Amino acid sequence: MSRRRYYLEDRALDDAVARFEAAIERVGGLHPLDGETVPLAEARDRVTAAPVWAARSVPHYHAAAMDGIAVRAATTAGATESSPLTLALGEQAVWVDTGDPMPPGADAVVMAEHVQVLDDTTVAITAAVAPWQHVRPMGEDIVATELVVPEGVRLRPVDLGAIAAAGHATVSVRRRPRVAIIPTGTELVTPEAAAEREAIGHPVRAGEIIEFNSLILSGMVEEWGGLPTRLPPVPDRQDLLRAVIVSAIDHHDVIVVNAGSSAGAEDYTATVLAELGEVAVHGVAIRPGHPVILGVAGGKPALGLPGYPVSAALTAELFLRPLLYRLLGLTPPPRPEVTATISRKLLSPLGEDEFVRVTLGRVDGRLIATPLARGAGVVMSLVRADGRARIPRFSEGLHAGAEVTVELLRDQAEIESTIVVIGSHDLALDLLASHVRRAGRRLSSANVGSLGGLMALKRRDAHLAGVHLLDEETGEYNASYIRRLLPDEEIVLVHLAYREQGFLVAPGNPLGLSRLRDLARPGVRFVNRQRGSGTRMLLDYQLRLEGIDPSAITGYQREEFTHMAVAAAVQSGAADVGLGISAAARALGLAFIPLFSERYDLAVPRRHWESELLAPLRQILFESAYRSAVESLGGYNVDRMGEEVRV
Amino acid sequence: MSRRRYYLEDRALDDAVARFEAAIERVGGLHPLDGETVPLAEARDRVTAAPVWAARSVPHYHAAAMDGIAVRAATTAGATESSPLTLALGEQAVWVDTGDPMPPGADAVVMAEHVQVLDDTTVAITAAVAPWQHVRPMGEDIVATELVVPEGVRLRPVDLGAIAAAGHATVSVRRRPRVAIIPTGTELVTPEAAAEREAIGHPVRAGEIIEFNSLILSGMVEEWGGLPTRLPPVPDRQDLLRAVIVSAIDHHDVIVVNAGSSAGAEDYTATVLAELGEVAVHGVAIRPGHPVILGVAGGKPALGLPGYPVSAALTAELFLRPLLYRLLGLTPPPRPEVTATISRKLLSPLGEDEFVRVTLGRVDGRLIATPLARGAGVVMSLVRADGRARIPRFSEGLHAGAEVTVELLRDQAEIESTIVVIGSHDLALDLLASHVRRAGRRLSSANVGSLGGLMALKRRDAHLAGVHLLDEETGEYNASYIRRLLPDEEIVLVHLAYREQGFLVAPGNPLGLSRLRDLARPGVRFVNRQRGSGTRMLLDYQLRLEGIDPSAITGYQREEFTHMAVAAAVQSGAADVGLGISAAARALGLAFIPLFSERYDLAVPRRHWESELLAPLRQILFESAYRSAVESLGGYNVDRMGEEVRV
Repeated sequence: MSRRRYYLEDRALDDAVARFEAAIERVGGLHPLDGETVPLAEARDRVTAAPVWAARSVPHYHAAAMDGIAVRAATTAGATESSPLTLALGEQAVWVDTGDPMPPGADAVVMAEHVQVLDDTTVAITAAVAPWQHVRPMGEDIVATELVVPEGVRLRPVDLGAIAAAGHATVSVRRRPRVAIIPTGTELVTPEAAAEREAIGHPVRAGEIIEFNSLILSGMVEEWGGLPTRLPPVPDRQDLLRAVIVSAIDHHDVIVVNAGSSAGAEDYTATVLAELGEVAVHGVAIRPGHPVILGVAGGKPALGLPGYPVSAALTAELFLRPLLYRLLGLTPPPRPEVTATISRKLLSPLGEDEFVRVTLGRVDGRLIATPLARGAGVVMSLVRADGRARIPRFSEGLHAGAEVTVELLRDQAEIESTIVVIGSHDLALDLLASHVRRAGRRLSSANVGSLGGLMALKRRDAHLAGVHLLDEETGEYNASYIRRLLPDEEIVLVHLAYREQGFLVAPGNPLGLSRLRDLARPGVRFVNRQRGSGTRMLLDYQLRLEGIDPSAITGYQREEFTHMAVAAAVQSGAADVGLGISAAARALGLAFIPLFSERYDLAVPRRHWESELLAPLRQILFESAYRSAVESLGGYNVDRMGEEVRV
Repeated sequence: MSRRRYYLEDRALDDAVARFEAAIERVGGLHPLDGETVPLAEARDRVTAAPVWAARSVPHYHAAAMDGIAVRAATTAGATESSPLTLALGEQAVWVDTGDPMPPGADAVVMAEHVQVLDDTTVAITAAVAPWQHVRPMGEDIVATELVVPEGVRLRPVDLGAIAAAGHATVSVRRRPRVAIIPTGTELVTPEAAAEREAIGHPVRAGEIIEFNSLILSGMVEEWGGLPTRLPPVPDRQDLLRAVIVSAIDHHDVIVVNAGSSAGAEDYTATVLAELGEVAVHGVAIRPGHPVILGVAGGKPALGLPGYPVSAALTAELFLRPLLYRLLGLTPPPRPEVTATISRKLLSPLGEDEFVRVTLGRVDGRLIATPLARGAGVVMSLVRADGRARIPRFSEGLHAGAEVTVELLRDQAEIESTIVVIGSHDLALDLLASHVRRAGRRLSSANVGSLGGLMALKRRDAHLAGVHLLDEETGEYNASYIRRLLPDEEIVLVHLAYREQGFLVAPGNPLGLSRLRDLARPGVRFVNRQRGSGTRMLLDYQLRLEGIDPSAITGYQREEFTHMAVAAAVQSGAADVGLGISAAARALGLAFIPLFSERYDLAVPRRHWESELLAPLRQILFESAYRSAVESLGGYNVDRMGEEVRV
């Protein structure tokens, strides 16, 4: 019994786009949508469906451009400060304010400053004026019949103002493409339903998945000018999926089915789309996003996007975005690109265009691109991404230090204001990210462990590293490692916080564990962290201090790679206790028994520490707002925050 | 009787900003607004009011990452293609689909491709797996309690997805700053009212002005994240203005009064704001935008913006934008900047920071900035602007060819795809702008007359020039001028259209004018165009051909500078007839009597003509869509469009 039904194609990206367009063309769907007339006050960001011609000139009359008297210029000749000229009010001169229509026969304005009132009927002027001086002639700004805004313009506020000035109260804009977004999967639960169930004590179970792709996809559709409909999840049944698609076709211009696009037993999307129209492409040689379906259904463009969020977002960008722009009569603008230095070696399979999400930051003048987790399921890699590098299908990857072209996903100004932190993760750093934002900085942090952070400083890939490295010889934190690994750098070691490590145990601490020695009690099953991790080093150091033999601890050999994996082992009952931070306990509703306090510092090369970029960070460490926020996380002591530690 | 009441200050820009902030600080209004909880589906583009922490891990259980069988990795050791290993279903192996929870005890998945079903209870595997292979461990993407999005982030679609994945259905975002926009001026008519009056035959009169600034300002407020209220125009009465502001204070966070900010007889804004709070600044040393008022009223920040649209938009950008960002807890991002070459000399007064709007385009590798009309009343200069150059207050300006820093008002990609046209204006060019947009190009056209266009080609400031220059010696169009002015350039002269010039006369042509000679009829009052204009050259050439003495024409000496000014003179009855194009007649509802056909060509250096940038334009000249659009303008003959003319 092979549970696979058929295999996907491996079409090259441009071939896939061409086939998709051809399929839409065959059903006559590749032209811009009709125009509709909307009031100007609702037209911002809409796209003009026709050129807008001026119906009126601006100004629509010759207007005074100054407060003063309107005159015929010829009558003012020779007037000066020393030989003023007398004019009869009403006949030769008429008072006007700025914006007033010029009286018949008048062709200039003498500024009020140059007018002296002699009596009720006479004024004297102390300056001559040239014809049309201080007059806004009719049509100076806009001439009736001239072009105000061409077709195919996304309307900005100033465009709306000009269209109103030119005599219109409405404007013809392209109808917004209506996009049905249909999540499929029996396991899906909407965020709203999950919150309701949580509130009544029936939280989402293992195997159930929160359906959040449709939020991402509909947000993207809105950004691109479309009108999304986020439909409820459809269970994995071919008849139901078919019925939902058929009904959506009537009221939408584009159909997007999310998931079920692969070739598994419960992947019905391709089958249903083929029944209702044509599957032009099934499988594109891209990573992530390979199992994408492109075709038409019921005469409308239809896409089956893969279920993993990163794949769904990327394939929407590659195939849905150009389509929506086309329906709006626009060419999708290319994203801005930068050249950056890649901080790590990046292998990529031949034969696939790979899109790698990266963070970006400028360190020592170089723009550094650090690849993010490449798993298609990692939604946080979308959140953290500053840009996207494309590794072409004929390349096997990039070596560290290579130059790479990166499409920007964030404003360049924001990237230039980024403080790059690499090292051990800590919640206090997460909080710091919020606080530096108020000062116009962005903190981008990559979690590669303390040693990884110091190595990043050595390679000049980061501004600072978060470190908590225990020297097992001396019990000293961080300083000895810095001396050893970065002998040539002047590093400022700044204390951030002490954080507690302790036992993660089942709620209520049923085995009554309270000290390190309890790990060796018979019947206590321990779960350990991997060798090299800070927590493991701390454990081994403390065991030696207390003279406890690791071989007396059941489970000492069982290694997990994260705080969370340890907590999960305890939660599932596979182990009774692990060593970790209190946040991991809180995350899974476990009890936490504090045992040790470990020092978490920031290691910062002095040239960065004293830079303008880090100035707000230096200050924040001494602000009570940040300190009390860290304290209220629980398990932190901030008394010595900001102190420089001797290296 | 001086009609001025008092004079404005001349505060430097940074001083004005500081005084405004201090005034707001005094009423305790300079902190971010409260948070409010909104559903994720409505939270796009809102700004987080607090960090968002994960309430749930993603995945929240160990999940299969492949379709296949879940196993304990240790039991698979040694399995290969040539020596498969047999496993008991249920005990040692459990079928799982991607996303299924891992059964208790299992820690890896063998892909379906490596599984052969032997019978109902037994499978054979042809590959071994390592622990955690093909498994997504709990928390791989997001660990409960970790930071998903910091405070102060404008939420993007991917952020919404991640927040939902992390177990939330809502998010706390900053309340949008509510901004009351109060237009003042007895002369103001809303676009809606103007359209209604037009429909019933009572169009807007001379002296009345369409109120469109509030459309621009409220669109800007929306772009910056605020919630604008566009109030109806308030007549110039101090008591009314005061009442409207008092009532707006209750329901808004910021008050914006538009116009009445100067120091004229009917400028009440400063007086009223001073009564209701404090005027901190009245008059800033900037151009445009000098008469701006910054202060507080009823405990809320209050701004009095000048009435001219360019001044209103600029002062909103300088003073309102940073305030709104501040209320949202954000730092306003700097606009992207580019360095460009200024195409024309630019004088600027000492003592004022001047903001000059420019168009931008890349010609022969250089980014060229061409200054737009600098009048504060010219709303089209806002529409056409690609960027804004700041001439500092200690500078007297820039010489042509100088480098200047320009803040971008448009995407750089759009600027790089810009075809720069300088020369004589024509409606067919306006239409071309719409057609090239469909092909992903933008056409930026500056109207400086035919000769000005050829000079721009000489200076390499444009890609092409629109020209209609009659050689009065030969009757030939354009070619002789190009030979004379651009002897060293290989210019392709491409025919665009023949356009009709003729008499502009009152509706019904009451004097029955039909041929050039009629201008010399007694009692016919003519209005002429200025010397050097194409129309004047055409007239003089034709008069000579027909042997008509100009001195026989009444009004031959009366010169106007635009087609529209000629039409306006006829409309007002000041003249009976002028020579011009049919569009000018149509614009003012005049009759048009066609007399001559003049050739309008595009002059294009060959290196541009054959460039990738102009490729779509070359093609469009031969498309029937464009040709028939030009024809339907009326007064055009397009039979020879696209033909190259010998130079």
